[in-house]
Amino acid sequence: MQTLYKQRIAQLQELIRRHRLSSLLVTNPVNCFYLTGFTGDAGIVVVEPGRTTLITDGRFTTQAKQEASSLAVVLQKDGLFRTCGEVLKRRNRARVGFDSDQVTVTQLGVLRKTTGSGVRFKKAAGLVESLRAVKDDGELAQMRKAAILAGEVVETAIRLLKPGVREFEIAAEIEYQMRKRGASGPAFETIVAFGERAALPHARPTAKRLKRGQLVVLDLGAILGRYCSDITRTVFVGKAPAKVKAWYRAVLEAQRAATNKVGAGRTCGEVDAAARGVLAAHRLDQHFVHSTGHGLGLEVHEDPRVAKGQKTLLASGNVVTIEPGVYVPGVGGIRIEDDVVVSKSGNEVLTRASRDFIEL
Amino acid sequence: MQTLYKQRIAQLQELIRRHRLSSLLVTNPVNCFYLTGFTGDAGIVVVEPGRTTLITDGRFTTQAKQEASSLAVVLQKDGLFRTCGEVLKRRNRARVGFDSDQVTVTQLGVLRKTTGSGVRFKKAAGLVESLRAVKDDGELAQMRKAAILAGEVVETAIRLLKPGVREFEIAAEIEYQMRKRGASGPAFETIVAFGERAALPHARPTAKRLKRGQLVVLDLGAILGRYCSDITRTVFVGKAPAKVKAWYRAVLEAQRAATNKVGAGRTCGEVDAAARGVLAAHRLDQHFVHSTGHGLGLEVHEDPRVAKGQKTLLASGNVVTIEPGVYVPGVGGIRIEDDVVVSKSGNEVLTRASRDFIEL
Repeated sequence: MQTLYKQRIAQLQELIRRHRLSSLLVTNPVNCFYLTGFTGDAGIVVVEPGRTTLITDGRFTTQAKQEASSLAVVLQKDGLFRTCGEVLKRRNRARVGFDSDQVTVTQLGVLRKTTGSGVRFKKAAGLVESLRAVKDDGELAQMRKAAILAGEVVETAIRLLKPGVREFEIAAEIEYQMRKRGASGPAFETIVAFGERAALPHARPTAKRLKRGQLVVLDLGAILGRYCSDITRTVFVGKAPAKVKAWYRAVLEAQRAATNKVGAGRTCGEVDAAARGVLAAHRLDQHFVHSTGHGLGLEVHEDPRVAKGQKTLLASGNVVTIEPGVYVPGVGGIRIEDDVVVSKSGNEVLTRASRDFIEL
Repeated sequence: MQTLYKQRIAQLQELIRRHRLSSLLVTNPVNCFYLTGFTGDAGIVVVEPGRTTLITDGRFTTQAKQEASSLAVVLQKDGLFRTCGEVLKRRNRARVGFDSDQVTVTQLGVLRKTTGSGVRFKKAAGLVESLRAVKDDGELAQMRKAAILAGEVVETAIRLLKPGVREFEIAAEIEYQMRKRGASGPAFETIVAFGERAALPHARPTAKRLKRGQLVVLDLGAILGRYCSDITRTVFVGKAPAKVKAWYRAVLEAQRAATNKVGAGRTCGEVDAAARGVLAAHRLDQHFVHSTGHGLGLEVHEDPRVAKGQKTLLASGNVVTIEPGVYVPGVGGIRIEDDVVVSKSGNEVLTRASRDFIEL
């Protein structure tokens, strides 16, 4: 196994010890990859002192041997969780941690039934996630590339916005441009929203055609080398009314204020409050219907969450999105989003597309 | 609410009554859409006799009003499951069903804590899924279109296979072609696997370039009007060795045998056995490392599963994939996959691309 994975497993074993567990079941495929390099989407990693076991199925045997060569590999017969229960039963571990945010009620039932009462299962959510929240230099280098790629694609997409084009055509171009630049795919369903559809923060691209006098929200992210990026830009097609310009300025000011707050030792709630405060000063806070941002990495939503009242302290190596927005039903919406790393001396914005107000 | 959704909810209420529940929590976003037309990806639908409530968050308010106009809509404050618990507590329902295959241990904990002991939660997995497994004519019309689209795209992609092209370039073209034809996106991560990578049933596209003398597996699906398609074709670049031709013939024979078995009243296990039996006759069954197929619809994997020993009876309106394959580590793999509907008089193959052995 590579040194990197050995280190991560050693860090996790320290957490397991601190939580007084004898082992931990890692069930989220992203966490399995983070710890072992295994890229199959069906597997459980059992981390115990001195031993790490990957349970997977026949489709992934070759992959498991290539990618996770020094792990013990067990192939499931009647389901991953039943086989996992059998592995645990044989070893008679007393306190097995599992991720209660991932494991379903059915899966826990299967584990309990298979092991019998000799094994106690303890809720232990978020252990691997807490390691993943702090990116190392290799991860940050990869995320920088993914963020730059997303910025290039958003700028390319803006140039394609001509009256008459359809939302889904722009979405197709965006995802094609990502792939052409080496991305394995979009990090989430690309959002292309014209006019009043821009008031839906999670609009799916439709066959709607672009008209003059409309706002356009583009929210996209690429997966490059398994790491996600996430960027949003909003532009106006035609000459924007004064009100729209004022909204844009307010959102940009909120985004800057929140970005400036990103730093080691700050709480996520402080960052969120900075954005919310600016929008309140412009009497727009009632139109800001979501939180300011979220952690980003192997998944597009991970720790830490940048939301109202969040007491989590930011630490060097965290990567978060900063994405305030205002949404006026029936009119449209404006959102500006960048990816920001907490660095030792402050922060670094990874995404690099212009934030100036663009009238096409 | 549209008649369609009223009918589906009425069918579900009948199931709820039969399971002696007072209400059911619907937590899978796909199930929420199926029952109400709501397309947001965060919501819980509470189905009770005479009343259906959608719990969602601020990002989806406008969408909920547009799409699910006659439902009671409740906005969550401290999380969907806490708000759901509060809704249930107020009504003091005695036996609330939940989908134990979807609800996590943490979520059930939040529900129990919020309602107190006055509400009993009962495992009730797969109720909406059992309705979804039987497609009506409108759904089948949509799935036919999605399947035809996938067939067109696979034929287009085969024409692009020239020595020197990279796996991810073909994947980009495939997804671009889907979007151009109106798909909202791929139904799963497109598989483009050259040479020995074709021996990995779930290979992710890489930067590897195509060479003469290699097998190519293309496995793709499109989401069109929210319904999925799924097709696989395998071709050879150059003149194929006799052994490869023999493998292809065996897989095609297995696929035909399994497809011919698809019909109302047959068990899924019989269909699987038909494919496995043909491969065993060719001494290739040890290289067939997965099940023969899976249900297809709003999700790319749904009921019924077409696997070894499955006793589920096929019913008119079921849609399944039939996708036997052989995988020889270090050499390559061959898989042929189509989407098949169980009809009243037999079956109908929805996907329409040539299954002849192609040497490029």
